[in-house]
Parts: sequence; C-alpha cells; structure tokens
Amino acid sequence: MNQRQCGLARDDKPHEKCAVMGVYGTPNAARYAYYGLYALQHRGQESSGIVSCEDKRFYKHIDMGLVPDVFSNPKDLERLKGNCAVGHNRYSTTGQTHLVNAQPLVVSSYIGPMAIAHNGNFVNSGELRNQLEKQGSLFQTTTDTEIVLHLITKSKHEKIIDKIKDAFATVKGAYSIVLLIDGKLYAVRDPNGVRPLCIGKKGETTIVASESCALDIIEAEYLRQVEPGEIIEIDDQGIHSYRLDETAERSACIFEFIYFSRPDSRIFGEKVDKARRRLGKALAVEGEVEADIVISVPDSSNTAALGYAQASGIKFEIGLIRNHYIGRTFIHPDQSMRDFNVRIKFNTVKGVLKDKRVILVEDSIVRGTTLRKLARLIRDAGAKEIHVRVSSPPIRFPCFYGMDFPTKEELIADKLDVDQIRDYLGVDSLKYLSIDGLLNSVPHERGGYCTACFSGKYPIKFDDQFKKFQLDNGIVTE
Amino acid sequence: MNQRQCGLARDDKPHEKCAVMGVYGTPNAARYAYYGLYALQHRGQESSGIVSCEDKRFYKHIDMGLVPDVFSNPKDLERLKGNCAVGHNRYSTTGQTHLVNAQPLVVSSYIGPMAIAHNGNFVNSGELRNQLEKQGSLFQTTTDTEIVLHLITKSKHEKIIDKIKDAFATVKGAYSIVLLIDGKLYAVRDPNGVRPLCIGKKGETTIVASESCALDIIEAEYLRQVEPGEIIEIDDQGIHSYRLDETAERSACIFEFIYFSRPDSRIFGEKVDKARRRLGKALAVEGEVEADIVISVPDSSNTAALGYAQASGIKFEIGLIRNHYIGRTFIHPDQSMRDFNVRIKFNTVKGVLKDKRVILVEDSIVRGTTLRKLARLIRDAGAKEIHVRVSSPPIRFPCFYGMDFPTKEELIADKLDVDQIRDYLGVDSLKYLSIDGLLNSVPHERGGYCTACFSGKYPIKFDDQFKKFQLDNGIVTE
Amino acid sequence: MNQRQCGLARDDKPHEKCAVMGVYGTPNAARYAYYGLYALQHRGQESSGIVSCEDKRFYKHIDMGLVPDVFSNPKDLERLKGNCAVGHNRYSTTGQTHLVNAQPLVVSSYIGPMAIAHNGNFVNSGELRNQLEKQGSLFQTTTDTEIVLHLITKSKHEKIIDKIKDAFATVKGAYSIVLLIDGKLYAVRDPNGVRPLCIGKKGETTIVASESCALDIIEAEYLRQVEPGEIIEIDDQGIHSYRLDETAERSACIFEFIYFSRPDSRIFGEKVDKARRRLGKALAVEGEVEADIVISVPDSSNTAALGYAQASGIKFEIGLIRNHYIGRTFIHPDQSMRDFNVRIKFNTVKGVLKDKRVILVEDSIVRGTTLRKLARLIRDAGAKEIHVRVSSPPIRFPCFYGMDFPTKEELIADKLDVDQIRDYLGVDSLKYLSIDGLLNSVPHERGGYCTACFSGKYPIKFDDQFKKFQLDNGIVTE
Amino acid sequence: MNQRQCGLARDDKPHEKCAVMGVYGTPNAARYAYYGLYALQHRGQESSGIVSCEDKRFYKHIDMGLVPDVFSNPKDLERLKGNCAVGHNRYSTTGQTHLVNAQPLVVSSYIGPMAIAHNGNFVNSGELRNQLEKQGSLFQTTTDTEIVLHLITKSKHEKIIDKIKDAFATVKGAYSIVLLIDGKLYAVRDPNGVRPLCIGKKGETTIVASESCALDIIEAEYLRQVEPGEIIEIDDQGIHSYRLDETAERSACIFEFIYFSRPDSRIFGEKVDKARRRLGKALAVEGEVEADIVISVPDSSNTAALGYAQASGIKFEIGLIRNHYIGRTFIHPDQSMRDFNVRIKFNTVKGVLKDKRVILVEDSIVRGTTLRKLARLIRDAGAKEIHVRVSSPPIRFPCFYGMDFPTKEELIADKLDVDQIRDYLGVDSLKYLSIDGLLNSVPHERGGYCTACFSGKYPIKFDDQFKKFQLDNGIVTE
Repeated sequence: MNQRQCGLARDDKPHEKCAVMGVYGTPNAARYAYYGLYALQHRGQESSGIVSCEDKRFYKHIDMGLVPDVFSNPKDLERLKGNCAVGHNRYSTTGQTHLVNAQPLVVSSYIGPMAIAHNGNFVNSGELRNQLEKQGSLFQTTTDTEIVLHLITKSKHEKIIDKIKDAFATVKGAYSIVLLIDGKLYAVRDPNGVRPLCIGKKGETTIVASESCALDIIEAEYLRQVEPGEIIEIDDQGIHSYRLDETAERSACIFEFIYFSRPDSRIFGEKVDKARRRLGKALAVEGEVEADIVISVPDSSNTAALGYAQASGIKFEIGLIRNHYIGRTFIHPDQSMRDFNVRIKFNTVKGVLKDKRVILVEDSIVRGTTLRKLARLIRDAGAKEIHVRVSSPPIRFPCFYGMDFPTKEELIADKLDVDQIRDYLGVDSLKYLSIDGLLNSVPHERGGYCTACFSGKYPIKFDDQFKKFQLDNGIVTE
Repeated sequence: MNQRQCGLARDDKPHEKCAVMGVYGTPNAARYAYYGLYALQHRGQESSGIVSCEDKRFYKHIDMGLVPDVFSNPKDLERLKGNCAVGHNRYSTTGQTHLVNAQPLVVSSYIGPMAIAHNGNFVNSGELRNQLEKQGSLFQTTTDTEIVLHLITKSKHEKIIDKIKDAFATVKGAYSIVLLIDGKLYAVRDPNGVRPLCIGKKGETTIVASESCALDIIEAEYLRQVEPGEIIEIDDQGIHSYRLDETAERSACIFEFIYFSRPDSRIFGEKVDKARRRLGKALAVEGEVEADIVISVPDSSNTAALGYAQASGIKFEIGLIRNHYIGRTFIHPDQSMRDFNVRIKFNTVKGVLKDKRVILVEDSIVRGTTLRKLARLIRDAGAKEIHVRVSSPPIRFPCFYGMDFPTKEELIADKLDVDQIRDYLGVDSLKYLSIDGLLNSVPHERGGYCTACFSGKYPIKFDDQFKKFQLDNGIVTE
Repeated sequence: MNQRQCGLARDDKPHEKCAVMGVYGTPNAARYAYYGLYALQHRGQESSGIVSCEDKRFYKHIDMGLVPDVFSNPKDLERLKGNCAVGHNRYSTTGQTHLVNAQPLVVSSYIGPMAIAHNGNFVNSGELRNQLEKQGSLFQTTTDTEIVLHLITKSKHEKIIDKIKDAFATVKGAYSIVLLIDGKLYAVRDPNGVRPLCIGKKGETTIVASESCALDIIEAEYLRQVEPGEIIEIDDQGIHSYRLDETAERSACIFEFIYFSRPDSRIFGEKVDKARRRLGKALAVEGEVEADIVISVPDSSNTAALGYAQASGIKFEIGLIRNHYIGRTFIHPDQSMRDFNVRIKFNTVKGVLKDKRVILVEDSIVRGTTLRKLARLIRDAGAKEIHVRVSSPPIRFPCFYGMDFPTKEELIADKLDVDQIRDYLGVDSLKYLSIDGLLNSVPHERGGYCTACFSGKYPIKFDDQFKKFQLDNGIVTE
Repeated sequence: MNQRQCGLARDDKPHEKCAVMGVYGTPNAARYAYYGLYALQHRGQESSGIVSCEDKRFYKHIDMGLVPDVFSNPKDLERLKGNCAVGHNRYSTTGQTHLVNAQPLVVSSYIGPMAIAHNGNFVNSGELRNQLEKQGSLFQTTTDTEIVLHLITKSKHEKIIDKIKDAFATVKGAYSIVLLIDGKLYAVRDPNGVRPLCIGKKGETTIVASESCALDIIEAEYLRQVEPGEIIEIDDQGIHSYRLDETAERSACIFEFIYFSRPDSRIFGEKVDKARRRLGKALAVEGEVEADIVISVPDSSNTAALGYAQASGIKFEIGLIRNHYIGRTFIHPDQSMRDFNVRIKFNTVKGVLKDKRVILVEDSIVRGTTLRKLARLIRDAGAKEIHVRVSSPPIRFPCFYGMDFPTKEELIADKLDVDQIRDYLGVDSLKYLSIDGLLNSVPHERGGYCTACFSGKYPIKFDDQFKKFQLDNGIVTE
C-alpha cells in the first residue's frame, strides 16, 4: 500500500502535493468529504480542511494535522452544513507552510462567496500574481491557488461558467481543481491532464476525488475520470460538461503509477495495482539477477516486488517489517545510534534474510539516504548479497507540475551515475527500470505521460525565470 | 506484520495484555526503555510508562496513550534519570481501566522504593489479596501486580533475592515480570513459562524485553530467553541467575506464535516468522482447495498467507489494502453505510479479486464480525469464490493467563460449528488448522505449549471461583 | 479596576471592541507588543495576535484566547522577528467570530505586505465593500478593517503616505488604527477622535497603544495622544505627523471614562482614575440618600464608589468579594440553584452588610440581570436597605462606533423607566447620573464627547440602511 | 479579597496548604464539592480532586491545575456518582509535587475502599511511617496523609469509629481531615484546632468545608465549626459527634485571620473580615504616622487597609491596580526590564500617588522582594513619602503545622531587624503590628492561637529530628 507515515525517513521519497474532494447533492456532503479525505491521507498529511455551502452561507473547518485529528470532534462536522462541500489535504513539509495556506481557500466577492481546493501547480503564477497585484488585488496567501479566484472575479463575462473558462484560459500548468461557486460544484483538469481527478456516484450524490479509493470508502460507484481540459459543473440538474478552448497532448504524471496513488485506486481511468505490477515484471526482465528471494520496501513497493517475483520465479518474502505507529513527535536519540531513523520505522526478519541473496525492490530513489541505511540493516541480518531493483528510472530533474522533490542538488541521480549510487548504497548490484520499460508498462489507451523528472522533457512550457521567481518570492505552489 | 491499530475493528482479535522492558547499566536507561516500548507498541496501546532509578530515587512518567504520545516531550525522558529503568505498555480496552492501574507500579517500603511491571495473570490473586487485606495491607490499584510488592515486603527473609523468591513461591499463574529494587533490576518468568521474556546486551548494558524486536531497535544483541522459573538479577557485577523452587512442565502460550508477537521477533528462543510460515504451510495441507490466488488479512496474517501460497503453489496476491492512519477519534457515520467499520480500515484491490477464486488466510477468529464484513467486501469486488483458511484452531475457551478475549458467549466457535461459522461469514468454504497441525508446526526443542483456548486443557490449576471472584470484584489482571 | 473576566455575567456590561498596539525601533518589538496586549487584555479576550516585520518579511502569530494562552510558548515570540510590530486583542462574544477575523490582518500587495489592526467601526463599510467587490476585489474576512487595505492599494497616489490619506478620506466612522507598511509603522485616529490612542517612548523605541497602561508595563514614557484626524508615521528618522483633510468636532467616547479603560490609564490625554472619581462625586450630589455604607460592584466600580464615599462622607466598605479564578469552561448547575451565575463570581461579606443601609455603586447598567441577582444576594446578607447609584446615565441607544451592546430590545432602559428598573432590581431606590452631571465630570480642555448611547445624538452621520446592511450581511465590525 | 493568583510574585507570601470539602446526602454530592473547591481555590492551586461514593464503589477525578481546568468537561462530574463525596485543593509550589500526591487519596482495604483529604501536617509522620514500613506496609505517596489510612486498617478495634479514634490517637499535629469510609462521611479536627473546618446544611445535605465561603456558593447555611478534637460522623441518621480522648488548649492558626482565609468567610466560628479590619485599626494605633492617603496591596490587604484608614481618619485610596489575567505560562523578559515581575501584576495609579505621603498597608512580609519592587513603583509614580504598615508581626520561625514558608534563611525578618528591612525596602518608615496588638484584635471567646511563626512558641511538641527527617526523606506534608 502506498502509505507514507508522518514524520520520519521521507527523504527518499518525492512528496505528492495534495488531494481534493468535492461532494454535491446530499446533506451528508461534509461527512462524505471527510471520509474521502481520510482515504486520501497518503496524498497530504500537513493540513486538512472542508468547506461546505448551504444557501450561499459557507462553513469552513481547516487545521494543521492528519484528517482524524483535524476532525476529532463530531461537532466539527455537524457545523459544516449544506448539500455540497469541497475538501483538501495538504502535503507535509518542514518549510514555510502555515495554516493561512491551508485549503480550501474561501473568499467573498460580488459573485458571492467562493471556495477552491487545488492539486497541482501553475507555471505562470508569478507573472499573473504580479499583474493582479499591480491592478490593486490583495492576496491573503502565498499559494498560487488564490490567483484563480481573482481571475474569475476579474472576468468580464456575465455567466459564471464563462468566468471560470476565462480564468482557466489564463493559468498554465498542472491542476486538478474543485470549486464551490453560487451553490454549484465545479471540477476542472488542465488540458494536459497531469494530475488525476475522477467522478463517482452514490445514489443522487455526485463525488469528485483525486483517486477512486475515496469513492470506495463511501461506497460510491466509479463513473469516469474528469477529462483533460474538461470543466464539470454539478448542480440539481445533474452533471454538465464544458471544455477549455485550449487543447494539448495528454501528459499524465507517470509517478502516480509508480508511487503516489494507492494501489487500490483507479487514476487516469486505469487501475494502479495492475500498472504497478507490470512495472515489477518489466523490472524483472530488465534487471535480471540470480538470487534466492525477492523482498520489498514496505508498503509502497509491495506490488512491484510481487510483480518482480512472479515474472522472475524467485520467491517473494517479507524481509522487512514496518512499524506503523510512528507519531509526529518521536524523540530522537543522540548520535550514538547509527541508522536509528531507519530502525524506528523498519526492522529486518532475520530468519528470512540470513545467508540469502536478496533482491530488494524499491519504487524510486530520491536522495538514497534511507535506502543506504536499509541496505546496512539487511546486511547486518546476514544477507549474503543485496541487489537493489528500482521500479522507475533515475530521478534527475525537478518537477514543476505539483510534485515536491528536494532541490536538484539533493537528487542522488543528478550527481552520481548508477555504479556510483550502487557504491553509495553499499549493495552488490543496482538496476533502475528504463524510461522505455516504464512507458511500456503503463496503459496508453488514453494518451501519453509526463516523464520530465526522468527525462527533462517538460510538456508544459514555462518561462526560464519561473522557478527562480518562485524561490525568490517564497511562493508555495499547490 | 503483527500490528493492531487503535480504535477499530479489533473485535475479531484477542488482546495481548502488556509488554515489559527493563534496562540496566547506562545513563540512557529510560531512553532505551522508551525505544523498546515503542517497538512493543503492538502488545499494548492503552497506556505506557517508564520508571527509572538513580541513587535510590525513582523517577516516573506514565500516561494513557500510545508511546510517542505519552513521551511527546523530550523533557519527559530527560527527567527519568539513572542507569536503570523498567517500562510497560498496557493493552487497550474500553472497560474499567484507568491511569491508576497503568504500570510500572511504584511503592515506597522499608526496603526502599520498588517498581514493578507485569505481563500475565495470577490465578490466585483473589485469595492472596483477601489475605493481605485482612492483615491490614492497603491497595492502591485493582491490579493483581500490586500483590507481588506486598508479598516481597512481608517476607521474613533477610536478603532481597530471598524475599523475591518467597513472593513468587506464593503467586501462581502466568507472569513475565521486571522489578527495580535497591538499585538492581530483576526479571522473573513463571515456572510454566507462559509469557515470553528475553535478555539482550548492548555493550555493558543489559536489556530485558517481552520480544526481541525491542532489542533490535536499540541495536542490542539477543542473548537468550529468561528461562521458565528463572529469576534474573542484574547489577554492576553482571547477570545472576536464580531458580524458583517450583518446577513445572513448560506451557508457552502458543498464541504468541499465531498472532501476538511481531514476525521479526524471537520469543521462547524461537523465530516467530519461521513458525508462522509453517502454520501457513500446514494449513495449505490440511485446508487444500482449488483456487486462483491466496490473499491475507493484512498485516498480521501476511506471513501465514505466504506460507500457504508457497506450500500450495497458488499465487500470493495483495487483495486487501490496509489504511494505517486510523486515529483514536474517528467520527462514525450513521447506519446508512453498511460495513463502514471495515471499509475505514480495509479496501479491496478490485483488479486482483475480480472473477477470482480467492483463498483468504486469517490468523484467528474471535467473534467473526469483522471477517464477515471483509468477505462481503471481497465478494463486492467480484471474487467468484471465497475460501477462508484460519492458521489456528477454533477459539472456544477463555484464557486465564493474560490474554484478553471477549466473554465465552461472544466467541463464535463456542456457539457455532465450522459449517455454521462458514454460513455466518458467507463464504464458500472455511477450514481451521487442527490442534495437531498447530502443535506440529511450532518448535518443541524447549518444551510444550499451552493450548487452553483451543482445547480447554489448562496447565496451571486454579480454583473454580477464581474467575467468578475476578469478575465480581472488578479486578483487572495484567 | 476595570476588569472583565471571561465567560460569566457579562450581560450587564457593554463590550469594548479591541485594543491595538504598535512598536517601532527595537529587536524586542514583538515582545513589547505582547506585554502591551497583556496590559490591554480587558479590551478584548476573544483572540490576540501580533505581526512583526523584518526586511519586508512579515511574521504572524494569532490565535483565539487570552494573551498568555495565545503566546504560551516562548518560541511563538522568538519567531516574530524584526524591529517593528503591530498587535491586537479582540473582544469576546458568542457569535459568529472566528479565527479568520482575528487581527492583525495581513495581505500581500504590489506595495509589499501590509498589516493592520483596528479598534472602532466604519459606518460606510457596507457601501465601500460593495463598490470594491464590484471592482473585482476579493475579501478574506467579514471585518470592515480589510476595506482600508483595499483602499490603500487602489489609491492612484504615488507615495504611501498619500495612499493612506486617500484611504482614510474614504472611510467614515470611529477608528484607532495601526498599520505596518513598507517597514514603517503608522497610527491613525478618526477626525472625531472617538477611540483613544496614545504614543510613548522607551529610549529609541516608539510605542503606540490604546491606553497608557500598556506603556507602563514596559516602562515606557507617556508622550501624548495621537490627535483626532492625525496620521503618525514612524521610521528610523523619527515620528512624522500628517493630518487628514477632513476636520470634525472632537467626540471622544465618554464610556471610556465610565467603564472601558483601566483606571490606571490615561486616555484622550486625561487620567481615567481622576475622571471616574469625579463621576462618583457628582453621583453623590445628584443621588444623595441617607445610608450607613457605600460599597461598589468590584472591580470596575471601585473608583466611582470611592468618589461617592468621599463626597458623601458615608463610609466606604468592601461588601462584595469577587472571585477572579473564573475560567472559560465553568460547569453550571441545574436550575436548582437560583442566582448561581452571580454567586460563582461574587460573594457577600455578611458582617459588613448585616442590618445596614447600603449604597451600591455600579458604573453602568445594560440588561440589569446581574445587578438584580446581586441585589438579592446583598438582601440575603441582611442589608436593611439597598440604594443603587449608577455613575452613568441610562443606556438607551446602540453604538455604531465600536462598542458592542446587546440589541436595543435587550437594553433595560429602552423598555423601562427608572422606577420600573428599580422595581425590577428589587432595590429601595435607584439613581442614575444625569448626562449633564456626566459631562461636567469629565475634562473638556481637548474638546467634546460622544454621548450617543445615552442621548441618541450621533456625531458621525450614517445612512439609515447602514446597520440593517451590517446585520443582513453578517458583517462583523471591529 | 484574599486571592493569590497563579504563577507570579508569590515570594512575599506564605502558602496555605490545601482546602478540604465533604458532602453527604445528595445525588449532587460531587457537584457541590466542585463548587465548594472552586470557592476555596485560594487555598490551593496546584491540583484539585474529588472522590465520590455510590454503593461502596468509588469514583475519582483528580488532576493538576485549577478547579475549572481539572473539571473542564461536564462528563468529569457526571461520572462522579453517588450521594457523598470528598474533595481537595492542593497548594502550588515548584518543588517535588506530583499527580501521585494529589488528593483525595483512595485505597482499597478489607474495610472496603477509603478516601481521605487532608489540610495540615503530622509532626510524628516520620516515625509513624518508619514503624508502618517496618511492619510491611507499602506507601503509594510521599504524603503524610496516607499514614492515617494505614493506622485505621491496622487498628484492632471492631467498629470503624473506634478504628478512626485509634488512628487519630496516634498521629500528632495539625489536621482538618475528611474521610469517606463504608458509605459514611467523617470530619476530624486535631485537639489543638489549628486548621479551620466548618459544617453547613442545605436541606437534607450536610457539607463540611475549610471555610464558610464554600457553603455560600452552594447556598448552604452555616451551622458551626467542627470543634478541636471532634470527630463528626455523617450518615443517613444524621450528624454524630465523637471526641478524641486527648485534649489540648486551642491553638488556632492566627495566620488564617491575617492572610489565608477569604474575608467573606467564617473560620474558627468567627468572621474573617471583622478580625482583619480590627488588625488594620490596631495597626493605625501602633503605627501612627502623618500621611495623605492609605493604600493597600490588593487584594489581600484591602480590608486591613480600610480598617487603618477608618481608625486613622486618613483617606483610603486605590493606588495600585492588580491585573487578574495572569496565566501559568507568562513569558518573561530578559534582564533589561527591572521590576517586571511586579509590573506584570501591579500598576500604579499616578494621579492618586503623585506628591502624596503614602501609607502602604500589607498583611505580611516573608521575603520582602516583591514589596521592595512595589515601593519602587510607588516612588516612580511620584509619591513623596512611603510608610509601610504590616498588619502582622515579623515572621521569624518556620511553621510545622501546615503552612509553607520558604526556608528560615529566606525569611527577611530572620536576618534583618525592622530598621534594616525598612532600608532594604527603600521606604521612609516601616511598622509591624505587635504580637500583642495582633492577639488583642482577634476574637478569644473560643480559645487561644498559635503564633509560632512570630514567637517561636510551638503549641504541639515535636521531636528535634522531625523537620530534618522530613527534609532528608523528601516527605511532602499536607
């Protein structure tokens, strides 16, 4: 399962930035949003929030923390009245994130109150913000999400749907967005379709969610994905579909298949589990090696490891046990305990590993620090050989479309070649899945993928100064 | 992995009652106890506590909650000065447990202050308590643990070790106990050796723990188990071993292999993972059935399921995803959502289950309510057939040695036969592992096992009125 | 002392709406703001916040609660870096106030970030907000304070001071405001000078505060008040004074002398204690009655009662003891205990009251419910006669300039004449100070006063629909 | 009012050690105890607790903190079922006090469960504890209170009342105690009657409380005090009175009149307010001085200051304003702000003090540090002369009967004579009330007083090693 627990040893993983939920057509709207956000916890653990709407009054509850902590009091949910709601989980980082940036964002305007929740990143946010500020707009947050609300309000069009189209014709980037305006729920995906967003039904109720596992938990039925460049409008008359004028080749984030999404979800209309197993199988072909057992780094690499074992005929074993009780406030030891950061999270099953040639399947490597310690643990448990197999290519480029890597300098594959990484990890062999192997393993019926973090080929263009501007202005992107 | 998360759907599992830790010979004593308790979190989630000792002064920090929550402030640990410490996790129940019963227990006496932590249950606690009260003893808790301290103090012997022997000659039952008295650490196991307790070394430091995974986290080396009927005394001169006069046939709790202990632990001197896999293999032989895939109820049944798959040659798959974010205060829906209790914890991987004949491996069944809902979820995901295979026999008798079942009336196997249980679960077939199959799968080099919960054969005798007395007097046993 | 504790029996008092603090010229800026807000706690108990500024970066800490609770962690203050800061306390009410409305308010704009804290109320906020929204402005709060920031940003003037002038030429009403813009601290008072605001110095540091008691706590020297219609700009060059173009007759809120301000403060350039004592003396003349003792409703009426005793020659006694431990979460009894709300806060000193003719001095009456219960307590303690003397006239009109009364319907003097109120209170006689007596007691060197709540004469004009608009739109005024 | 707020500037005051409450004969027993403890908050701010009894089941809620914080959740009270209850407030100190020592104390014994709450101190606790421990008794706390429960249980008598008599024949010292045993409520005062304890009635309900203000808050009627050496037994048949065999001359703690008790209370059968006013009057005679105004250190010296003003004919004024919002966690400034500890709590009213010759009435001086800073503040406010008048004699001896002074070395009157103290305080003159003046001011109808802290004459004898033992063994006395 694709589960990243809070607080520890996440330095070897990129961070997904946010989950969104929208519910329309039930007095349980906020409640369903809550359960959905709970199922989407893996996409963001820093803050969580829900805004509901009843008769143009908005109700809002947002706080820092995990979903069950933010909504620990049943009254918090009861206060969120109304038959529609939007919700948001925000990812966790140590940096400059604060309650004020937590979403959904609510503003008051002449259209009435508006709420927005966003998963993604606008690549022209800097210039748009500059323009808007020069026109006298005030910003309450440092998120790029707020820009959308200003653009909607500034639009000269009469009808709200046209204002929304206007706004999304202006922003560029990767975005899966839900909006509450004038008693209606809107769901929008960018023309490239980078981030996932799907629609489900539970009786008369319509649900929009980042991944389908949020539908399962409330026993809703999966309908379809929101298409790239589509604007969905949901009201009492049903679901209406509009198109953004701009078209673009689909560039779905391939990392969603590799690591982000839960294996029990559908994204981009496809089953994650199936794709992830195929990654493992392809890896078994590309990274063949003689060994006694295949183990995974639990839980996110379990499915790929199983695929590897099945394709290679080598026995799948549970060689690492993961401790799920980790809380936010773990007290760390002094320097005397080497590898403690990893030990607090993982333990080896010595009977499984002793005297064995071990294939260790990992879904991705960012910095490599955790994996290095894990390898040491496995070696200490008596493994004779360790062969690391990674079910994705080396990560060498930053993501500007909503995924949070450390800086380029911290990406191990930016500095070292595969042999050097192998030596750094202290393992006997290391193989990454090739970009071709990766692309051949994921479904292509619905279009292509963004592989920028591996290939450096960025499907959505941005100004060179974009990232610089972001950093200089301390702008946080969703 | 043997992980029982807080708050939900535990009605299908027995509850282990407590973990103990003891550390001697380092200024980091409390800190090591803390990490050890953290690794032993699965044995008790209700309360946690540590008592340390410096120059006959005792320092104590105990509270309700998980280990990281109880010790959320680094100062809590810093205050626990001294080079020896004992610690305790208590299991979680809804009943009459309170902070006052949380352990370690500390008293002041003419020997000086004493601290105790206990995993187990005394079967003669009622009469002992009565006797002591009649002699004018006051009790501060409703636990049976406190009796030991009274008995030690009442002993006429001069030397502390003889007082301790005296006390343990009087109590009967199952116990793994750590004591801090007069600057020394003691570890005691009952003559039958029902509950596990092991010893480890990290440099000059000696550690005593319920399971060896608590040694791994602090990079200590596994030495051996404390033997049944052995009293270990640890001071600056080293480790001294004494024997209780009473001898008994070893009756180790076989449930530790089935479910309680972590698969990466050693207990009773043996590797849990290895035994648990053999249970799965034996089950594959006894419970053979034609099917397409083997899945487990994660995480506690993973190892047995893997064993089943290996022995049967049927493919192991991940068909259920478990959500580990569950907090203590989850807000529940109204009645409209059937099976919500299970959905909040598990989701099905539809691509794995659809149109498949599924073998579902579970380690044990207590009430059956959760498993029934899980079966329904699996069916909803499209499984053609569901064959439940349980890697232990039907639980039909209460445990008086420290394991917490619901009342006999709530044990499904007490009321229904296997066919009826199958019908209740709504599955196509159901097979339990036989008692013989169970006994043949676990190591016997070191002696026999207690199978009372399956067989009704209680190796340690108790008065008929014992349980009645317990219930009538609201006595909580450790 | 003018102290209104949290949570109980405030129904007999109007609520001041907020305190403001500004500090410039010391690395201790946030720290001084904190101590000042602490001294101004009586002006607002709902929320507290500070925004500091270092090199155009803003640091913000705001939360619901009393000042010591909001800033309970020293790190909260340490994070507020920079040599200038503004702070705000918000009054407590049960209504629709939320964290989002807590101040200081921060926005980002093309001028850079701006922070504002406000004590008062704009009477044309409704139309201004409407106009701004129609121009596409988004609002993040429901406070009228936010309007100022929009107006500053929209101003066509080049220089910031001119933008600020522009903005305050547009808003009408009562306001004492502090602003942080472009590394400078601004302090503004409305042309009528309704709310107090004063300036102090501590070495090189300049402090602006609602009342001078906030200067005393940090050992700063009182300089002068900010004049009505004055804009103060504070930077490294010193204090610069500008004037709003509009002029108006001074209409200082006379209630500040009666009840709001602390007796140890200076407001409007005058000592509160002195004025308040003169109110008591005037009341002794107007409300002469034969009696044995004068007692006050502690603590806010102490000074007036002392004045009454001195002028009348009747002995001042302490007949009521006030409990200051009241917390926010007091558990209330069922109906069986009559007058409990008052008993929890006050107790009678029976030896003082028994068989005495008692003059009870109270500063003001809003609903009369608490005073009625107090009279009953005093009667129960054996008082022969009770003569209530109120050191202000009957409150009969709402305040639109920043004071929070209950609705007009709840004002007892709106429904009942003085004799009827006396009967309602169950006392032997009741006298209010006359408006003339009130005006003759306060200093007039610096101009006139607003007595609208007593006389209905509103010095600042507003549209009839103003209040209606406020209510309809749920707008909260500062 | 006799109010000592938490956390600051208490170094000039002795600390009362605890309040006790007992309620019998109403399903509201715990609720009444709660309100009573709330009224008695000034006698102890560290911890608060209530134990109730229903059908021999005990319910307990105890925690660190103020009464409203300990009982912040209405459910905490609802859980405390039954028609009788005992309660306790414990004083606040920085030392070695912990939750485990918080009262009421509950134990289980062959008599059934017992609960005890204690205000006072046993002077033979060391030897008693030694004896009991040697007999094998275990102690759960470091309080001397626990000894009583052991003695009751050890008594050879048959009837409970005889066991209680037996126990109190053994302990020596000052004690006002409430006990819950076998469904009955007991109240006991030591033969010397050092600490106060009174009885009240509310319908069929009997209430026992340290001071009568706890009766007032629940509208109960004051009946009488529990007499020195009396044991009160309360059950369904009513109130039964027994006598301890030992008799002694009454030695009521005279400090209760000077400072501890609330002025609206009766203690030892007498009105505190009346006695305290007479102290002020006597002080006016003994400490006559020409001056313009009399002010008090609020709130505890208000009544004495009023008495002084009345007797001297010098005008009473409010020259110091006290801030009651002080919380537990105030963040302190660095060294730069001299006298901050006092400024955070007090401010001067400059208009009152400027150019005046000021008599400052204070009830007692322990260390003198706060008073010294206060004098400096008053001087800074422009006072021409400061004459300190203390309504009690110099404190020169420790109290062994339940009052908590700093060590003898820290008592300023132990080191300095009156002239030296005057110089230390930096005031123009200093006069203490003489012991004779003190004794002549308090009522003598019911017997004599303990003046040990002033005179060194200890009415209850104790072994020389008593205090040493206490200190050496870290024993905390109630």
